[in-house]
Amino acid sequence: MQIMNDFRTIWLTDDNYVEVIDQRKLPHQLEIIKLLTYKDAEFAIKNMTVRGAPLIGATAAYGVYLAVRELIEKELDGTFLDQAFSDLRASRPTAVNLFWALDKMREALDQTSDFLSTALETAKQIVEEDIETCRMIGVHGLPLIEEIARKKNGNPVNILTHCNAGMLGCIQWGTITSPIYQAKLKGIDVHVWVDETRPRNQGSNLTAYELARHNISHTLIVDNAGGHLMQHGMVDLVIVGTDRTTRNGDVANKIGTYLKALAAYDNQIPFYVALPSTTLDMSIRDGLTEIPIEERDQNEVKYITGKRSDGEIDSVLICPETTSASNYGFDVTPAKYVTGLITERGICPANEHGILTLFPEYK
Amino acid sequence: MQIMNDFRTIWLTDDNYVEVIDQRKLPHQLEIIKLLTYKDAEFAIKNMTVRGAPLIGATAAYGVYLAVRELIEKELDGTFLDQAFSDLRASRPTAVNLFWALDKMREALDQTSDFLSTALETAKQIVEEDIETCRMIGVHGLPLIEEIARKKNGNPVNILTHCNAGMLGCIQWGTITSPIYQAKLKGIDVHVWVDETRPRNQGSNLTAYELARHNISHTLIVDNAGGHLMQHGMVDLVIVGTDRTTRNGDVANKIGTYLKALAAYDNQIPFYVALPSTTLDMSIRDGLTEIPIEERDQNEVKYITGKRSDGEIDSVLICPETTSASNYGFDVTPAKYVTGLITERGICPANEHGILTLFPEYK
Repeated sequence: MQIMNDFRTIWLTDDNYVEVIDQRKLPHQLEIIKLLTYKDAEFAIKNMTVRGAPLIGATAAYGVYLAVRELIEKELDGTFLDQAFSDLRASRPTAVNLFWALDKMREALDQTSDFLSTALETAKQIVEEDIETCRMIGVHGLPLIEEIARKKNGNPVNILTHCNAGMLGCIQWGTITSPIYQAKLKGIDVHVWVDETRPRNQGSNLTAYELARHNISHTLIVDNAGGHLMQHGMVDLVIVGTDRTTRNGDVANKIGTYLKALAAYDNQIPFYVALPSTTLDMSIRDGLTEIPIEERDQNEVKYITGKRSDGEIDSVLICPETTSASNYGFDVTPAKYVTGLITERGICPANEHGILTLFPEYK
Repeated sequence: MQIMNDFRTIWLTDDNYVEVIDQRKLPHQLEIIKLLTYKDAEFAIKNMTVRGAPLIGATAAYGVYLAVRELIEKELDGTFLDQAFSDLRASRPTAVNLFWALDKMREALDQTSDFLSTALETAKQIVEEDIETCRMIGVHGLPLIEEIARKKNGNPVNILTHCNAGMLGCIQWGTITSPIYQAKLKGIDVHVWVDETRPRNQGSNLTAYELARHNISHTLIVDNAGGHLMQHGMVDLVIVGTDRTTRNGDVANKIGTYLKALAAYDNQIPFYVALPSTTLDMSIRDGLTEIPIEERDQNEVKYITGKRSDGEIDSVLICPETTSASNYGFDVTPAKYVTGLITERGICPANEHGILTLFPEYK
């Protein structure tokens, strides 16, 4: 798994600016975008050049660093930095990592007079911590896959996932992919059902791309198919990511996750959520009433982007021109449908007691 | 609702050939295809020029008529007709209407020496019966909507549907749309959430098109969204169609239906299946083990067809070129998740006793 050592989703350039992969172009083109200002970082988060809770957090952290750099180079006053924090905070409403990373940057800056190097070092530290966190999620998730593999007598372990909570949503390893990559390294035969994940197709665009790059056997399915596969014994385990998990264990994740949780529950298939503890939001309990759900542009539903037969990337309209569409980005899976949370400190039940056993500092 | 009187999905031409709407071109182009031979009819069913259980049945019936005509005109022997029956029967594996219509045609031909006019009249009769059946499904389904409307104090009744079980899947009225069209005629404020229905997008292509033509308020959503809408009280009623319903009340319908049934059950929202009794298959009980589920071409998942900005209809690739996809066409919703069946004779519970109360002749 050579790629784990040299392939990242965000990095510093030689002149200490920031570069990211334009994930809107994947899987058809691998394009790199250079972020020169915090506005570039804000825009990259908003328009989903970068996506995935940990990568959003890392981009926001580097965004603060870019704001500090601009502040110093252009001799602006402190209101500029306040504006940067406020703009970055508003760039995506659901991702709690974003708020966590910004708070961490703010705290570090509040305790220093050397703004530039503190901002840079803190952002770097957020990135390195995420890599280690993701690696540890894999270490703790791996035994789940090993246990199923033992029961399957050499047949592949079939894992279903929704959206992309892979390395492309993080820096390296990913959250849900980390146990999968570690199982692969152990020689376990793993096969992944990849939910397309309409409307933005993060599954078909990103998860399929990254699993292929890591040589993991996988099959693309429409979001409608998972229930049928589960009814017919073709899924052994569901693992999804999360953008925000509450004190009670309710899980906000990409729209459609809840439907897969219901199907897993109905068919007695374990349904796990892989998460860095930074996505825990201990300030709220009831995910259904307390997590605001982002509503996005209806054109994300009405148009689909892909590659034409002539190689051009283009969007096609898939409904009558005059049709109105609704586009909620996330849904909430109630804790009762979640078998467990796979965190960097181990696996726990999706409830307050379980979370506090692993993370007593959140009491 | 003028359109109900003059707009059909299949009809005879002046020279007694058959014409159908090419539903693969909708909603972007309204193209008519003329069927001259039974092979044309078989191909139209196979490649989904026509789709929807009743329309498939009607097309197969006219296909037999076209075979008889060819047999007579070309002075072929009886094996040609046997081949036609066999080819038409194999054109789609799941749709029980297809088998029903072919059996009815066979029975009529077995009792006559005037093949041509018997074939034509029997096919016409199948079509007229379907129109009346669909109208009656609306008559019996309407009170469900009226009852919800009374509780909603003038707010619209929100109905969610999956795929297209509208008039485009039938001849006129449709199955799930028939109660909706009749509610509209009664002046009830109805709003429909239209599931996109990947991979072939019958919702965004067909249901949205036909609801717009009938001036019914509707909103397109991705298949992932329904659970979230139900959790938040935005759905009052789910109505779907079916390709085959068993003696026990298990419902085979477009892939993804089962997920919506689970969400409706979890949120105590009524989940009804509208069906002509021709889609009842009393020869089987357990839908999960006894209904063969069609597996279609993986390219239906990998490519999406729509209209480019220059107006051309084109397909775009939405995953890496090398990705493999799986494409099951249907799933089975267990009877326990079905609130009731809306048939041309009334509404009944989704179980053997309920079905036999309305259709004692199926004992």
